[in-house]
Amino acid sequence: MNITLAQARQVVAGALAAGRAASYKPLTVVVLDSGGHVVAVEREDGASTKRFEIAHAKAHGAVALGLGSRALMARAEQQPYFIAAVTQTVGALVPVPGGVLVRDADGGLLGAVGVTGDTSDHDELAALAGIEAAGLVGQPD
Amino acid sequence: MNITLAQARQVVAGALAAGRAASYKPLTVVVLDSGGHVVAVEREDGASTKRFEIAHAKAHGAVALGLGSRALMARAEQQPYFIAAVTQTVGALVPVPGGVLVRDADGGLLGAVGVTGDTSDHDELAALAGIEAAGLVGQPD
Amino acid sequence: MNITLAQARQVVAGALAAGRAASYKPLTVVVLDSGGHVVAVEREDGASTKRFEIAHAKAHGAVALGLGSRALMARAEQQPYFIAAVTQTVGALVPVPGGVLVRDADGGLLGAVGVTGDTSDHDELAALAGIEAAGLVGQPD
Amino acid sequence: MNITLAQARQVVAGALAAGRAASYKPLTVVVLDSGGHVVAVEREDGASTKRFEIAHAKAHGAVALGLGSRALMARAEQQPYFIAAVTQTVGALVPVPGGVLVRDADGGLLGAVGVTGDTSDHDELAALAGIEAAGLVGQPD
Repeated sequence: MNITLAQARQVVAGALAAGRAASYKPLTVVVLDSGGHVVAVEREDGASTKRFEIAHAKAHGAVALGLGSRALMARAEQQPYFIAAVTQTVGALVPVPGGVLVRDADGGLLGAVGVTGDTSDHDELAALAGIEAAGLVGQPD
Repeated sequence: MNITLAQARQVVAGALAAGRAASYKPLTVVVLDSGGHVVAVEREDGASTKRFEIAHAKAHGAVALGLGSRALMARAEQQPYFIAAVTQTVGALVPVPGGVLVRDADGGLLGAVGVTGDTSDHDELAALAGIEAAGLVGQPD
Repeated sequence: MNITLAQARQVVAGALAAGRAASYKPLTVVVLDSGGHVVAVEREDGASTKRFEIAHAKAHGAVALGLGSRALMARAEQQPYFIAAVTQTVGALVPVPGGVLVRDADGGLLGAVGVTGDTSDHDELAALAGIEAAGLVGQPD
Repeated sequence: MNITLAQARQVVAGALAAGRAASYKPLTVVVLDSGGHVVAVEREDGASTKRFEIAHAKAHGAVALGLGSRALMARAEQQPYFIAAVTQTVGALVPVPGGVLVRDADGGLLGAVGVTGDTSDHDELAALAGIEAAGLVGQPD
């Protein structure tokens, strides 16, 4: 199972709407499918240059290890060498909140969303709002 | 000057609409700003896994060298070692049609669009259709 | 918007003049545009071999994340694993003072300056002096 | 022995002046010392994003192998696999004209200049003009 482009568009629109409603700084939203491949991206005007890469790495780490990036932060605080080593092994992985797994109502994995631009906690709230707007279930940790 | 997210959305929608109207295979569209950074992406359902990377590399090569990817194909046919060397130097660069520079009415560079999924010629037609839909000017070579 | 070569030359000359006036060790100054691409560089005689790379990484990190490198140092002290992960994701990034965003009078981002060679605090002072010499506004954090 | 910053500035100014006099497209000039390390760079307004990287790779290949990049082009045409393999081994190396070794009057190696932006032949002419303007001797092959 994979998130569809139609669902991914709803996630992006919902996350950006939440960010605008809360007056967050410019956000970037990346939606990956369950294989970790890019489905949809939007980067708001005024975001810094490498925000795609950071949002992508939050979502990519979540899919790669099967955990939201908040759980990866906990692991990074306990065992920084583990996260450093896994990054070398699996590629870019940013272990702070804002990378959220996306599941259907039955718990099936559809993909992941990565958000960056404001604080990590706010990034995660925007990601969850986008997933909810698409009628799907978010797993942040 | 940079393409805005609002313009990039029009490019994406216009390129995908052109692809559906012409019954192309599933397309992936990547829009970069004039610094080569991702602004918007959509990958249609049924596209193969790495289509983001290919569309990105078409657009990235165009911005990096200041030429549409059709011109880079001509160079690759004359001096394949040049394109190989430049790829090592500037990063991913796919030298076949489908990477198109985006300019405003005065010729100012706003960014680039990369499309992949069907034949390279069809990919380029979809990119040009998207740029036109946004009221901008495409440079394919 | 991007810093021009004429402005970048003023930044470089101003930063090096400040370093000579204060008897700093040999400095290297790198000016990037708002997309993170090199516009001008000078490395003084007697500087060690890899000073371009270090100055570049200070400026590149600033543009990539939209913060002066002093702010990235603060983040590195709080969450070293975050900076390590982002480095893997966005490329070279040296999170100590000396990487300063360059803005115009209206706050528009024009690029960034990276300076290295003396202490990080002195490097930052030289960067700020160069930006001021060009009539522009520096953001060190 | 190494080229000095004062000499490198003369090379850059001379190369850009030659390009303007001949109405070349925007040029980028990179000067490396005899150890292959960056001394001075200028990228003219309107040059595409990755021109530093290309000019650098022309000069870097020249220093790395002790031959002007025109000689590396000849080798690439005879043995493309050699240039591909060396690129993997020594890093970026663009084997087309425009990378010129810089020597003093006695033949001592001082560094190299890389120029890109117009045709490779024109790039080389600009590099040679810059080296001559500094009172030094260029070796293009």
